[in-house]
Order: sequence, then C-alpha cells, then structure tokens
Amino acid sequence: MARSTTIGGYLVTRLEQMGLRHIFGVPGDYVLSFYDQLEAGKLEVVGTCSEIGAGYAADAYARVNGLGAVCVTYCVGGLNVLNAIAGACAEKSPVIVISGAPGLGERTHSPLLHHCVRDFDTQQQIYKHVTVAAVELNDPETAPALIDDAITACVWNKRPVYLELPRDMATRRCEAPGPLRIPKPGSESEPLAEAVREASNMLRSARRPVILAGVEMHRFGLQKSLVELVERTGFPVAATLLGKSVISERHGQYLGVYEGAIGRENVRREVERADCVLILGAFMTDINLGIHTARLEATQTIYAHSRRVSIKHHHYDDVFLGDFVAALISSPVGRKHPKPPPEVEPKPFRSRKGKEITVRRFFARMDDYLKDNTIVVCDVGDCLFAAADLTIHRSTEFLCPAYYTSMGFAIPAAVGSQIRKRRLRPIVFVGDGAFQMTGHELSTVAKYGLNPIIFVLNNKGYTTERFIHEGPYNDIHNWAYHRWPEILNTGWGCEVRTEGELEEALVTAEANSKSFSIVNVHLDPMDCSAALLRLGKRLGKKVH
Amino acid sequence: MARSTTIGGYLVTRLEQMGLRHIFGVPGDYVLSFYDQLEAGKLEVVGTCSEIGAGYAADAYARVNGLGAVCVTYCVGGLNVLNAIAGACAEKSPVIVISGAPGLGERTHSPLLHHCVRDFDTQQQIYKHVTVAAVELNDPETAPALIDDAITACVWNKRPVYLELPRDMATRRCEAPGPLRIPKPGSESEPLAEAVREASNMLRSARRPVILAGVEMHRFGLQKSLVELVERTGFPVAATLLGKSVISERHGQYLGVYEGAIGRENVRREVERADCVLILGAFMTDINLGIHTARLEATQTIYAHSRRVSIKHHHYDDVFLGDFVAALISSPVGRKHPKPPPEVEPKPFRSRKGKEITVRRFFARMDDYLKDNTIVVCDVGDCLFAAADLTIHRSTEFLCPAYYTSMGFAIPAAVGSQIRKRRLRPIVFVGDGAFQMTGHELSTVAKYGLNPIIFVLNNKGYTTERFIHEGPYNDIHNWAYHRWPEILNTGWGCEVRTEGELEEALVTAEANSKSFSIVNVHLDPMDCSAALLRLGKRLGKKVH
Repeated sequence: MARSTTIGGYLVTRLEQMGLRHIFGVPGDYVLSFYDQLEAGKLEVVGTCSEIGAGYAADAYARVNGLGAVCVTYCVGGLNVLNAIAGACAEKSPVIVISGAPGLGERTHSPLLHHCVRDFDTQQQIYKHVTVAAVELNDPETAPALIDDAITACVWNKRPVYLELPRDMATRRCEAPGPLRIPKPGSESEPLAEAVREASNMLRSARRPVILAGVEMHRFGLQKSLVELVERTGFPVAATLLGKSVISERHGQYLGVYEGAIGRENVRREVERADCVLILGAFMTDINLGIHTARLEATQTIYAHSRRVSIKHHHYDDVFLGDFVAALISSPVGRKHPKPPPEVEPKPFRSRKGKEITVRRFFARMDDYLKDNTIVVCDVGDCLFAAADLTIHRSTEFLCPAYYTSMGFAIPAAVGSQIRKRRLRPIVFVGDGAFQMTGHELSTVAKYGLNPIIFVLNNKGYTTERFIHEGPYNDIHNWAYHRWPEILNTGWGCEVRTEGELEEALVTAEANSKSFSIVNVHLDPMDCSAALLRLGKRLGKKVH
Repeated sequence: MARSTTIGGYLVTRLEQMGLRHIFGVPGDYVLSFYDQLEAGKLEVVGTCSEIGAGYAADAYARVNGLGAVCVTYCVGGLNVLNAIAGACAEKSPVIVISGAPGLGERTHSPLLHHCVRDFDTQQQIYKHVTVAAVELNDPETAPALIDDAITACVWNKRPVYLELPRDMATRRCEAPGPLRIPKPGSESEPLAEAVREASNMLRSARRPVILAGVEMHRFGLQKSLVELVERTGFPVAATLLGKSVISERHGQYLGVYEGAIGRENVRREVERADCVLILGAFMTDINLGIHTARLEATQTIYAHSRRVSIKHHHYDDVFLGDFVAALISSPVGRKHPKPPPEVEPKPFRSRKGKEITVRRFFARMDDYLKDNTIVVCDVGDCLFAAADLTIHRSTEFLCPAYYTSMGFAIPAAVGSQIRKRRLRPIVFVGDGAFQMTGHELSTVAKYGLNPIIFVLNNKGYTTERFIHEGPYNDIHNWAYHRWPEILNTGWGCEVRTEGELEEALVTAEANSKSFSIVNVHLDPMDCSAALLRLGKRLGKKVH
C-alpha cells in the first residue's frame, strides 16, 4: 500500500472497506474533484434527479445494506438533501453524507463565493442538528482520524454523519489508510448481568409474556438473534409499524403489527392482555404506536433499546441491545407453549371483474401478490396504514418511514433498495400526493434499468388530511401517472378502475421484467383504510 | 375591530396588511389549523407539489411583489424548503416562512411525535442560520410583538424570517392587531452628509464616471431613483448579472451586464476604463462578477449597499442605500454628456430553416422574441450565462438566482411570478438537469391555469460541469420533456432541432395563450455559450 494518499482517496478507500458498492448524489462544482476520485475507485456513483432523491435512496440503501452514502455539492446540494438525512437520523438509518465546499484557499480573497448562505460553516452547523458527527476535513494531519471517527459514530449509533470536504482539500496528501478497525462498544458487565437477571425473572414468572420487536433489531443486525429468542422461548412476537418485517410475517409465532387501537384488533388484544411485554429495539413513537392508543403498563414492561434497558420504572444505562438479547437467549426465561393465534385461513382472493376497486380490496389482493423475491416500499399516507396488514414473506422486506413520515420517500427508496439487491423486485405503494413530490426519480429507475412495480394510489389529493381537516388545499392536480413511460422512453403503464382491470395490470406488470411498471389506481377521494379512519379521528382531535 | 383574535388570525391579518395576496405551501397535519385560518381570510393558498417548489415560488413572488410567504408543516416540510430559503437569504429576497409544529400541550406526555428529528427546537435552530429572525410563537402575550418584529426584520433586511406556530397555539386568543406600523430605519445624518459630500466630489472631478447597479436597487424599491440619478447625471450605467433588468435595458445610457472577462467585451471596457465607479446595491460575488475577473480599483470606487457606503478603503456605517442615492441626486455631482455607446443596430434575426439550432443562435432569436408583456425566468446553468445578453424591455423582468445558483429555481419561480402578475407571461429558460429537479411543478402551472412558455435547453446532461470536469456523472437520462402535457392533461409541447422548427414552435407557443407551452430544444452536449467556455476554464482552474 502506498505510504501516502489524498484525503479524498483515503475517504474512498474507507467507504470501500465498509463494504459500500454504491454512492448516491448529484455532482456540482465544489465536489467534482471528489467525484473524479470516486470514479477512479470501485464504487458506482448513482446519479439521481435531485439531492433529496439521492438522500432517500441512500437511506433505503442503508436499510437493506447496513450503511449508505450520499455525495453532494455545497449548500444548494447539502441543504437540498437535509430533510432526507433528518429522516434517517430520526429512524436510525446509517448514512454518510459527503459534501463538497469552497476551497480553503479561495475563502480569504473572495469571501462572496457562489452557493454560500452566510458563513462558511453554516452548512456544518446545520448538520450538527441531524447527525451524530459533523466535521470539516480541513487539515491533512487530522482528516484520517476524523473520517475514521465519523464512520465509527455512524456504525455505532446507526445514525447519519456529515463530512465536509473543501475542494482544495480533496487532493491534499495525507497518510494512507491501514486496515479498517471499527471498535466494538461493549456493555458494562455488572449492569448487564443485573438487568438480564431481573428481566429473566420477570419473564419466567409471567403467564402470558409477549415480545414486541422494533426496527433496531434490524439496524443492529439482531434479526437472527430475535428468531432464536422467539423460538427458544416460545413467546408470541409482534412488531411495530416501523419494525414491520423485522421477523418473517409467516413465522408461526408472529402475531402481526401492533399499533394500539389503529391496528388489527386481535394483535392489540394479544399484546395488551400480556402480563409481561419484552420490547426490543422499538421506537415508542406516536404513529408507530397508534397515536397514543397503545396501552402498555410500565410495571409489566421490559424495554431494551440501543444502549439502555428499562424495567418497570428504572433504567440500566450502558447495556447494549445486542448483548442483552444474547444474554437473554442463554438465560432461564422459561418456555411457553402458547396456542398459536387462531389460524385465520386466508380466503383466496376472488376478483370481482366489473367492481370498482377500493383500498381494502386492493390491499387484500396485494397480500396474494407478494412473492419471495419482492420487497415492499411504502410511502406515507393511507398506503402506509393499509400496508401494515400485508404479510411480508422474508425479513426486512418492508421499507417505510413510519416515524418521521416524510412524503416522497418511496420512489427514490425503491431505487436505493434495488440498486443494492438487484434480484429483489420492489413493489411500491405511493399516494398521488407523495408521487408528485419525488416521482420524477422514475428517471433514475429508468437510467439504471430497474424494474419496480409501482402502484399510485390515486385518490386525487391528500386523503389522510381530508380526515383531519378538509379544505381546498387538500386537492391536487390529477396527473396521468401511467403515462410516465412516454416521458422516459421506457417502462410500461396503465390505469385501473375495476378489480378486473387490476388483475390484467398485475399480469402484465409481472411479465414486464425488463423495465418499471406503473399502475394508476383510481380510488374515490374519501375511500380509505379502516386504520386511517381511526387515525384521522385521533389526529383531528389533537389539532384543536 | 374585535378586541381579541387568535395568534393564527393575527398573523393572517398582518400578512394581508402587508399587501400579500398569495401564500405558497404544502399542507400537513401540524399546520392544518393555520391553513383553515388562511382559508377564512383573503389570501389565496397556492399549493405546490413539494415544499422546495413552494419556496422557490415564494422567493420569485417576493422578487416581483416586494414580499412573499410560504407555509409548511414541521420538519418534513420545513426542512424540505430550507434550500430555497437559504437562496432567498443569500440573494436578499424577503420571504416569510411559517411552519407548523407539534402542540406545546402534547410535547410533555409523548415526546416521540412524528416528524421530529431530535429536539423540539431543532428546526428553529436550523432556521437561525438562513434567516434574520427565527422565533417560536409559544405565548399569546408575546406572539403579536414577535410577529411584528419579524415582519419588520424581513422588510428592513430584505431577507427571510421564520415563524414557528405550534398547532395548539394557532387558535389561542391574543390581542387584536392594530394598524400596521413598520418603522422606517434612517441613516445617521452626519456620516450620510460626509459620505455624500465625498462621493459627490469624486464624481464631479472624474472624467469618465460609470454607475454599476445591483439587485438591491430593486429590493429596496429604488429603481425610479436610479433612473433619476442616471438621467440627471448623464453617467452611463451597467448592471450586475443578479441585478440584470434593474433598469430597462433599452435605456439610452445603459451599457449592458458587467461580468468582468465573462461578459460582453464592450461593457467590460467601458466599466474598467472608468476613472470612478459608483456601485449601487451590488453583491460583490464571484459568478455575479465574472469569477474574479472583474477589475475594479478600490481607490476609484464608491460602493453603497444596504446600510453602508465604502469609498476607496474607508467605510461609513449606518448610511442607508436609499438615503445615499436620494442625497446624491440633489447634490452637485456634475453632468456628463457621454457619447451614447456606439449604436449596434440589431440585425433582424434571419432564421436558417434546416440549420441545426445552437445556443448562440437560439438566444439571438430570443432577443427578438421578448415583448413588453414577458418576464424572463432563468435557471442555473449555461442558460443563465447565455441569457445575460438578452435585452429586457422593462425593469425587473429578469429573474434568476445568479449568486446562490441553485438549480431547479425556474419552473416554480415562473409560478410565483405569474401568480402575482397574471398578465406578465413568463419566458422560462431551463436546462435539462435543472428541469429534472423541479420540472414537476408544471403541475402547479396547470392547476392555476398559468401560461408560461418554457424552453428546455436539452444538452443531455450537466454541460456547465462538462467544462470543469467531464465524467459519466454528468450524463442524465433523456426525457421527452415536450410530452409533459400528456401527464398533466393540459398544455402544449413540441421538440425542435432546427431553426425552422424553432420558428414554428414560437408561433404556436405564442398563440397558445390559455395554457403552458414547453419546447424541448435539442442541443449538442458540448455546444454552449461563449461565456460558459470562459467560465468553465476559470472554474476548472479553481478545482485543482
């Protein structure tokens, strides 16, 4: 290995060593030198239409790969991707943000450079609010350590970090990278032992224990441990909405998604009648837990997340989720042989040819349509609530921003997930409102020859909001969404109004494996899932 | 007038009193109560596809109206519009940002509310970096004064301000608004008198004085004063790129846009051979002044901007631009009778029917095409540099983000400008790369029945960057831009490759007054304006 390299080269090597194969972004003059360094390396640079699209794609990539990266120019790029990074921060998706910046050498003589807002550190200061590390690489002596520390912070916290690279620094010489070593944080042994002992006692003496699993089980790579714990204990397991598919939804002990009063009644009943709930890596958030309708008694709860275990009303700090789960597996928590939840034999879906399609019937049909090689990518809106009841076949194949709930996630997220896992075909559910925000990233789908099947649930406006406050501001212009293939010179599209038309569309879309398919599903503006009806009522109350 | 109102109602009244007739945004649950309050008032709420589009539209609205406003939901909305507001901050466009937020009452019991990143003040802290005032309206006692102070700061500084309105505060009672009083800041009288005296002496003794006018002359409403000063003194006048059209470009004493070595040679020569340059309200920025190629000697320069006058190497603080210009007009600065710049009789454009269209020929043709009822809206990229030489008929009818240079400005800016001035037909120049960022706001154009004529300068990629660093990242997917009318069920589009086809397109577009027209202008990827060739060389040098 060369004994020295450039700061940009060092960063590229580290990204490669972290196992990244792609990086998303939009080029701009302050970052072009680094783009050339990327081109010289092994990573594929995936260009999106806009930076916000690159951000969502990198977020989704991080969710399926364990780490993602996005690379943009200063301010006009960095500030345009901010919202996606804020979402990744909120939902613990580890994304490395790399931003170009004016060269240090050009700042003294000409302070008013283009793309600048106020001070040269404005963007870095802003990123401190949405990352766990935000640093400027302004010195060849310190840059290698800053890069390594930031990557470590990203991996430890599963949250975004920000690296700002002034353009004249990209090519400055610095020490060459050695082998990559990410220190592994460990729990404090005594608190860990005490927490496990207490939890184990509680679980053993419980008559009806339940596990509620959240998204951190995926983020920290604990999905196999989860299955082991579930199978060793025989406890039934539910997932939160954000954690949906953290365990295969075909698992015999799986109850379903728990969302308080918003979710399915049988799941709610099973979870809330438990006399001990073991919550693993869940975010206790409003939409994730049914807008404050969840009824979980603290005195019967063991709540473990990233670095802390809370039992009843006390806390064990510095006890890591992975260590806690591993120790629980080998501790005497008892074994239950609960009746499997009453087998609701799924009735085979029977299409009624001339019948107008409804949200409920559409998703019932979709439940049949999902395959082992599909990944569901879901945008915000009624499709998210309706999709909660789909049965995901394998683990981590349901992507959605269920906590931060930023509209426009799905299309670019489909890009990010399929770029990483080409054989996994994205089934995308997106409302018309969300599609109008970032649907143009279909261009990136086309550019890279991806083949998602996109269902635009076209209810002519912001239907989720109609149930909170109806007003003319909830109406949007109606697009012929299915005609995007004509703009992009590739892809296949159609519109459906009836169940019969849907069946035909499904057949053609599935056969169209070489390019994307987009189905414009016409719905009544006031048709919605049962969950949204309940949610709307609750959100509406909060508004006043 | 009622003796009390709500905080939201107070804010609506103030916006109306400021003469606003429209507000841009995307609704979301944290801001729906305020949306209802807006609906109850006189402002029209203009819904865009995404928040960034609303931001650019509000910015353009502010540029033509003197004040603009945008209203969004918390974080997913607020952070999505941030880049547009940063641009407005950088280029002094007075935009009021109103963001919903979680209710104060719901924060204690359920700290993990949706759309939250980290702390409840995260968004407010971020906005402090891109506004001149960022406040939360969390108390009915203080809210009225905070609103009034923020509006005053916006108007005084011509920069954005941020008002965060927790949703339970929107309906809280507060004092009713009285008549609106925006205090007018005034100069310190002695420094003003001294500065005017010194400037006046310098100008009187100069043999070849020149005025260089910038965008602040428009922002502070000083365009009539500028004409008066120019006509009273007989001095020739040039404009910066950002200030283009601050004076009618058909004025007899107008030289053209001064951009150092990047602009037209005759303008450069006239400005740089001057023995005294009176710079009024210009930003001394890189792209605005030809990437450091401008040669202006400080010892021969009088530089007045918002609140300060600099002469040679010394400064007069608290001398306001408007006061300074007014005082100069009535002071003895002498009168010149300069030869009018050699009349270059514009040759009538003669189309060569089968000839492939080039950038140079396209803009030569456009110079003929502009009318008294058109406003030019220009995106970033080669179109900006090429458009610098167009002759704008009236004042302030050239909109572009020439300093911050954020791609994607033009289509939503066309919405913002025409919503305010319906009879002014936008002629939009946008590159294919920029169009892919925000071109979907054509949906908003369609929704509100606007009729811009859009020219997509389709050079198949980021041509400006090709001249700095060429790489595969500069290629983008080729869209059939002219087929957007099929998506939107309105509008007219076509593609042109030759001068003859362009002529036909111009005739049809002009006749199509009821809806938008979009012309896909196919250009060679390496064809560009002469200015870009020079700019690319200079930017390329900086990159290494």
